[in-house]
Amino acid sequence: MNRTPRERMVYSAAQLVRARGPAGIGVREIIEHAGAPRGSFQHYFPGGKDQLVGEAVLWAGDFAAQWVAHYPETTSGPTPSGLFAHMVKPWQDEFAKRGYERGCPVMASVADLGGTDAPQVQAALDRWEQAVTDELVRMGMSAARSRRLAVLMISTLEGAIMFARLRQDLTPLTTAVDTLSPALNP
Amino acid sequence: MNRTPRERMVYSAAQLVRARGPAGIGVREIIEHAGAPRGSFQHYFPGGKDQLVGEAVLWAGDFAAQWVAHYPETTSGPTPSGLFAHMVKPWQDEFAKRGYERGCPVMASVADLGGTDAPQVQAALDRWEQAVTDELVRMGMSAARSRRLAVLMISTLEGAIMFARLRQDLTPLTTAVDTLSPALNP
Repeated sequence: MNRTPRERMVYSAAQLVRARGPAGIGVREIIEHAGAPRGSFQHYFPGGKDQLVGEAVLWAGDFAAQWVAHYPETTSGPTPSGLFAHMVKPWQDEFAKRGYERGCPVMASVADLGGTDAPQVQAALDRWEQAVTDELVRMGMSAARSRRLAVLMISTLEGAIMFARLRQDLTPLTTAVDTLSPALNP
Repeated sequence: MNRTPRERMVYSAAQLVRARGPAGIGVREIIEHAGAPRGSFQHYFPGGKDQLVGEAVLWAGDFAAQWVAHYPETTSGPTPSGLFAHMVKPWQDEFAKRGYERGCPVMASVADLGGTDAPQVQAALDRWEQAVTDELVRMGMSAARSRRLAVLMISTLEGAIMFARLRQDLTPLTTAVDTLSPALNP
């Protein structure tokens, strides 16, 4: 992938937020991680670190939404619990391959919020939730129930990611997939 | 409650971590929040901010475990889904009464970790998980299934807290209670 310096900064911000949260990282670190020219930051992000971090989380939300939308291509018999397993899989792969350094950027951002508004983090979660809802509706579930199950699935996944990172162990993710099934399938 | 200056510092650290995560707060802020004498910090916490934050999260884990153990006193017909509703209730009360500033200190700490070890945060989660497991075993469930459902319940609660704080809305907590039930009761 040939990313522009601006895209590299957004990507690097997302990866660093995933590891230590917005409060734990600095602009200089993001620029170095991205290998971007120091002077370009002000040009691309006149709103400073907040703008960059907001775009990074939104980028991650779109990435999660696209992954969800990809589910029907992976199976001939889509089910809600199959969709949940599909959502969990990249986290199992990431932790198995690269260790437990990086969690979810939405969770990392919410943890630092202190009750302040965060429109871009909200938008990221909205898009992810909408993508899950859309897939459930596509399986024939009502819109209302689809939205409720989307909240349940994302909530359980977020908590299981937290568990897995803290324990440095994949088991909580497997447990989440196995135990949540009875709540998902009709 | 008459807390000692040391206890007040641990309590204040817990409340501030809940709002903005360990990386988002400073020692001076904790001392001011606690109304403690500046010079006492070094005396009580020779390990610095890390020691204080670790103790604060552990204190919160004990608090959560005690709340769980309190469940049998609240009902004549304990069920797994009733226990989950009991675990969610203080969060509904907190957000309704005091707004969405403060989340879970375990989640806030994990978000800042970047894959490093955090024995006290792990211990806090362990004690909470053990308390939930114990209650489920008390209802007649096998130890293995109890532990798996404890992971599911805490994971779902953590994610729903994240959802509720970001949306500044209680609905995700209610949704979690309603939709998780089929996975919990035998």
